Amino acid sequence: MTIEAGRSSKHSRIRYGMVGGGQGAFIGAVHSIAARMDNEYELVAGALSSDPARAKASATDIGLPAERAYCSFAELFEREAGRPDRMEAVAIMTPNHMHFPVADMALRYGFHVICDKPLTTTSAEANALAVLAKETGLVFAITHNYTGYPMVRQARAMVARGEIGDMRVVQVEYPQAWLTDLVEATGQKQAEWRTDPARSGAGGCVGDIGTHAFNLACFVTALRPAAVLAELSTFVTGRQLDDNVHMLLRFQGGARGMLWASQVAPGNENGLRVRIYGAKGGLEWSQEDPNYLWFTPHGKPKQLITRGGDGIWPEAARITRTPSGHPEGYLEGFANIYAEVARAIRAHRERRAVEPGVLYPTIEDGVLGVRFIEAAVDSSKRGNLWVEL
Amino acid sequence: MTIEAGRSSKHSRIRYGMVGGGQGAFIGAVHSIAARMDNEYELVAGALSSDPARAKASATDIGLPAERAYCSFAELFEREAGRPDRMEAVAIMTPNHMHFPVADMALRYGFHVICDKPLTTTSAEANALAVLAKETGLVFAITHNYTGYPMVRQARAMVARGEIGDMRVVQVEYPQAWLTDLVEATGQKQAEWRTDPARSGAGGCVGDIGTHAFNLACFVTALRPAAVLAELSTFVTGRQLDDNVHMLLRFQGGARGMLWASQVAPGNENGLRVRIYGAKGGLEWSQEDPNYLWFTPHGKPKQLITRGGDGIWPEAARITRTPSGHPEGYLEGFANIYAEVARAIRAHRERRAVEPGVLYPTIEDGVLGVRFIEAAVDSSKRGNLWVEL
Amino acid sequence: MTIEAGRSSKHSRIRYGMVGGGQGAFIGAVHSIAARMDNEYELVAGALSSDPARAKASATDIGLPAERAYCSFAELFEREAGRPDRMEAVAIMTPNHMHFPVADMALRYGFHVICDKPLTTTSAEANALAVLAKETGLVFAITHNYTGYPMVRQARAMVARGEIGDMRVVQVEYPQAWLTDLVEATGQKQAEWRTDPARSGAGGCVGDIGTHAFNLACFVTALRPAAVLAELSTFVTGRQLDDNVHMLLRFQGGARGMLWASQVAPGNENGLRVRIYGAKGGLEWSQEDPNYLWFTPHGKPKQLITRGGDGIWPEAARITRTPSGHPEGYLEGFANIYAEVARAIRAHRERRAVEPGVLYPTIEDGVLGVRFIEAAVDSSKRGNLWVEL
Amino acid sequence: MTIEAGRSSKHSRIRYGMVGGGQGAFIGAVHSIAARMDNEYELVAGALSSDPARAKASATDIGLPAERAYCSFAELFEREAGRPDRMEAVAIMTPNHMHFPVADMALRYGFHVICDKPLTTTSAEANALAVLAKETGLVFAITHNYTGYPMVRQARAMVARGEIGDMRVVQVEYPQAWLTDLVEATGQKQAEWRTDPARSGAGGCVGDIGTHAFNLACFVTALRPAAVLAELSTFVTGRQLDDNVHMLLRFQGGARGMLWASQVAPGNENGLRVRIYGAKGGLEWSQEDPNYLWFTPHGKPKQLITRGGDGIWPEAARITRTPSGHPEGYLEGFANIYAEVARAIRAHRERRAVEPGVLYPTIEDGVLGVRFIEAAVDSSKRGNLWVEL
Repeated sequence: MTIEAGRSSKHSRIRYGMVGGGQGAFIGAVHSIAARMDNEYELVAGALSSDPARAKASATDIGLPAERAYCSFAELFEREAGRPDRMEAVAIMTPNHMHFPVADMALRYGFHVICDKPLTTTSAEANALAVLAKETGLVFAITHNYTGYPMVRQARAMVARGEIGDMRVVQVEYPQAWLTDLVEATGQKQAEWRTDPARSGAGGCVGDIGTHAFNLACFVTALRPAAVLAELSTFVTGRQLDDNVHMLLRFQGGARGMLWASQVAPGNENGLRVRIYGAKGGLEWSQEDPNYLWFTPHGKPKQLITRGGDGIWPEAARITRTPSGHPEGYLEGFANIYAEVARAIRAHRERRAVEPGVLYPTIEDGVLGVRFIEAAVDSSKRGNLWVEL
Repeated sequence: MTIEAGRSSKHSRIRYGMVGGGQGAFIGAVHSIAARMDNEYELVAGALSSDPARAKASATDIGLPAERAYCSFAELFEREAGRPDRMEAVAIMTPNHMHFPVADMALRYGFHVICDKPLTTTSAEANALAVLAKETGLVFAITHNYTGYPMVRQARAMVARGEIGDMRVVQVEYPQAWLTDLVEATGQKQAEWRTDPARSGAGGCVGDIGTHAFNLACFVTALRPAAVLAELSTFVTGRQLDDNVHMLLRFQGGARGMLWASQVAPGNENGLRVRIYGAKGGLEWSQEDPNYLWFTPHGKPKQLITRGGDGIWPEAARITRTPSGHPEGYLEGFANIYAEVARAIRAHRERRAVEPGVLYPTIEDGVLGVRFIEAAVDSSKRGNLWVEL
Repeated sequence: MTIEAGRSSKHSRIRYGMVGGGQGAFIGAVHSIAARMDNEYELVAGALSSDPARAKASATDIGLPAERAYCSFAELFEREAGRPDRMEAVAIMTPNHMHFPVADMALRYGFHVICDKPLTTTSAEANALAVLAKETGLVFAITHNYTGYPMVRQARAMVARGEIGDMRVVQVEYPQAWLTDLVEATGQKQAEWRTDPARSGAGGCVGDIGTHAFNLACFVTALRPAAVLAELSTFVTGRQLDDNVHMLLRFQGGARGMLWASQVAPGNENGLRVRIYGAKGGLEWSQEDPNYLWFTPHGKPKQLITRGGDGIWPEAARITRTPSGHPEGYLEGFANIYAEVARAIRAHRERRAVEPGVLYPTIEDGVLGVRFIEAAVDSSKRGNLWVEL
Repeated sequence: MTIEAGRSSKHSRIRYGMVGGGQGAFIGAVHSIAARMDNEYELVAGALSSDPARAKASATDIGLPAERAYCSFAELFEREAGRPDRMEAVAIMTPNHMHFPVADMALRYGFHVICDKPLTTTSAEANALAVLAKETGLVFAITHNYTGYPMVRQARAMVARGEIGDMRVVQVEYPQAWLTDLVEATGQKQAEWRTDPARSGAGGCVGDIGTHAFNLACFVTALRPAAVLAELSTFVTGRQLDDNVHMLLRFQGGARGMLWASQVAPGNENGLRVRIYGAKGGLEWSQEDPNYLWFTPHGKPKQLITRGGDGIWPEAARITRTPSGHPEGYLEGFANIYAEVARAIRAHRERRAVEPGVLYPTIEDGVLGVRFIEAAVDSSKRGNLWVEL
């Protein structure tokens, strides 16, 4: 077993703050654990809720000192900017509509950014952020966390080195069950904002999980997407946004694909799955069983490659923590993104290039994701025509 | 365990003949075993190849008496029609372009027909056959054999009785690997005719396996299809017909679906799989593991229903032969279609209605299948527009 | 795909009769279908039940002519022996205690025998039959049908050619659920005789399914068993025979194993599974998913070999009927035993040796199986000591 | 989703130290991540290796201050005992033979203990530690970490509330592949000490992983073990300890079981799996796919219960961090043990009882584990007789 991640570092930890992620938001705990796992980060400040009382209470819960528990993101940035021990980075985990103003201000104050997806609710905002990020030279990562799974890296590496041959077919899907009923009418907070155009943006299911599926397909294949044709459906009466997405995909170079995302598919929890086929072989990976990768070289028996096991490549081995057969999961994958962002921030501290092989999702991925949502909504509205990306 | 099929009958067996299925055609053995399994049929005649020498040799191989081993289907029908012990039915397993002339002549001579899919290569022919079949009152079955699997019947019954609720999403796929290379250039007979428009018709992959997937989706859900949007691709250089099919489906009543069929997906053998989701639950079935059916009632743990096992319904139990845990397979499913056609032929003999619950695929399914292929080809040629069925 | 089985033959079919297998006995239908599948046999006579009325009714059901529907096995053998078109072989599917008298008489009248397992209820009877069979030179097969699955043959061939290396560990199990309650008290015929020492012999679970597991382990590894240590348990109050078996196994050459058989394991249907490990690799096969074989070469990724698929060996390919991905099941495996017995009977007809590669279970397997049961019962009674085989 | 674990606490963190776990020991990283995951612990000191230079270098690696990086465990305890900010607990992850002296001294200096399994290499030592632990009233946990998986808790809760009925059969196994060759001769440190009786104790495989399997079986069923019958084998030439274990188990109340542990089973990574069967149903869980639990109520379809999903019970839900379908793994399970030990230490701080439902493995589990190893070795040496526990 090669363990590169998972060792705490002799370097000083990165001081960071959180915007959002207070009481009741599961993603807050996820970010915190991911940041803590490899001992690369120290949480020093936060504006954990847009509700000041909740922000304070949430900060107390997680042991933030009172003087760095802020009531708004503006206060966070202004006050932290003035401290000698100021935070270096901020993790943004608010509803989608707040990503832009928070990230924009963070960059302007000189903080590195780790932002939930989708990057923004419009391409205009996304592009503006990208320009700003480039100008500042700060690190800007987006939490397409599924690319942090070791076997996803294994898949990408195998594609890159030609094990699959010229890419032909890309099948990606992300079914869930949790919006099968109108749960947003029951006071469930997660459902409320995700189905509200004012907070979620123009895409419902397509923005919430379709983007993850799209990002994963692009990451594994390293193909550049060319166009999409989408049919967005809303099956649950009273819902404002799409809850099922059927799409055809075209990639540069001629590969074709399909994307299915659904939040009304009973029996599915987080069924993100990608299958790719080239002239020489195929690969299949499923997020719910992430320690396995099926490799199907054409004309030979199928092979099951396991995380940490025989046949693993360095690209995957370097981001695993436990021996083969001791499964890693969602939090470890998420932590791998944090660990790679830490490398980028350290390189920035030391005014040097990041080590090769570091592959956290960047603002360019975020911009493409927003464009993907817009194109899907556009295609669906226009009668399911192809829309270029 | 309820065993209804699998017992040979005290009734006299049905005398039948074969057109096609000679040496080198695996489907010949499949039909023969299926016919023999329940002792309901007796093979008495055949025109097993369009090549007379091969027809004779094939007949000798399988023990047909020389005087009933014919050199052409025309001879078969003419000569059999004149015998006192004439065959009652014919099974047609030629390349697609011959289905129409053979079936047409069979009906005109008064023989029941069991015909491979697709029914014909054009809707005009298909419709003509349907009219003729109706006029003659003869039994006409088409071998969409996957509907003969017990767990497919279980799924259909559960949908029909409302276990899944109003249907929303239908995901069906049929990936294979065997045309990943240009095997039709290597002398492989199966590949040759299936990729030749003159013998296969306008659809390649869409006609060969796309129709099976489409038929299965319709059978399980009992939904009527409304329109398709298709992208047919040919990935292998030198190939004349499509080898990958991406489709969106619309059903009457509002359900939406996707269909993927491919013959260039390494690692897939006969990966026919259907997943359906309604307001109350979901179902999932895979042809390669046909003794299992996943039932996912919304808000409850997933259930794995097994052929012959606890939770099985009469619709499935009546067509199983072995106890639960003793798997049945492709041949048993195929035999179930033969067994049900035998019931229909017996009912015809006895001038009575067929027993309720008998569900072999009919000529109407065949007509719809041909229309499906045409619509898919049309949609793809016209830039992936919706085409009504 | 290589298809050797599954083609009906130009040779004249083998005329055979049945003893047992009448109404209510699922195994009767299984034998009939297996015999019919490849068109190698013709059922011409039977003594289908020990109850004369049931014997007659059962014969009518399956279309046996009245004059060859006998009321006792003695009548069957006596009368058939005198016919010019006499049957050549008999299939015995009675409760265990009748195997000996029926098989003994069959051999004495010159009929080949296909007999259900266990061969007899005592080693004395088994040995006597073996002597008699040898003297007569007749074919004597025992239905350890699981050895007829193609992937079991694949496993055996891989072991034989050294792919696994020197054998170390053999894990075999056969759990079922069906005797979890005292179903023999409810009138269930299958349960009644199987739990009755007078009809089943001294072993309950160990004789009914433990023998299958033991036979499979020996078949795949080609190891000779040396000794067993057994703990037989009866968990259900009121039951007369064991319903759970825990055993340690020793093989000649030093390999060690475990065997678990149970009829009180809810959730298991016919969970026969064998896993073997040598110095170079491992193999795993499960009867409920019989088209797959896991091959795990040490230090390399696991491989999934599929029936008919890439990586299949001739020993498996020659007994498959359908292409890869079109699953075969229990009946096909059973039919493979019948097909191989047919080869042996034909060789006997033609006074020549059987073709190489024919591997139906012989009377020697039957003798060993009876010895296995006796040793297990003995070990358990004596406080779980090792008993040599 | 209920998230109870995974939130950092407003309470002050527990200061702890490590003995062992330096460079090259994967278990060091595992303990560290587990301790850090929920922000309940702060690593403040360590004696990370028995080699002073390595101890220092390892401490630097993980950012321990130099003055608390000790060169021996004795120095650690003596010096820490005198500090005002002294550590409160110690985690022991040395080879087995050092567990006793380190834990003994830790208790004598008043530190809570988290100790790797097996507790000691002899029952005499284990019993002495148990007496001492009781006298001091300190918390003493042993890292039978597999009991920290949520679905293991689900299983235990279902058994406890009678869902399975009276327990009959317990099948537990833990196969690995990694000692298939004589890797201890290649300089592999993990293999070296685990196969060395001087450091590992009298049990090889039985002590290293057999104890985990045994502990898991006892934990899930809550049965008290009565006796074992074991056959320990050493298959690899030159190895000093057993590398394969076959055992029969007897439990109080009449349940019977089997245990298989192996380190020479190619294709297995950490295949710990438990299956239990009672009069009403069964349960099955596998460590490599830990987010699933099969529940098989007798006479009903199998159910697949998922971590965080529908059908989950509070006992499991309270120790999960992520929503259903976002898998947790080995580290989360390990962290759950740490989190529960933290509750016990906090209760000790506050001189109150621990909350109900806290289930970390205690020194009693450790004592039983040592007794289990001794009994297995004894049984094997004496010709595989039953030895009482």
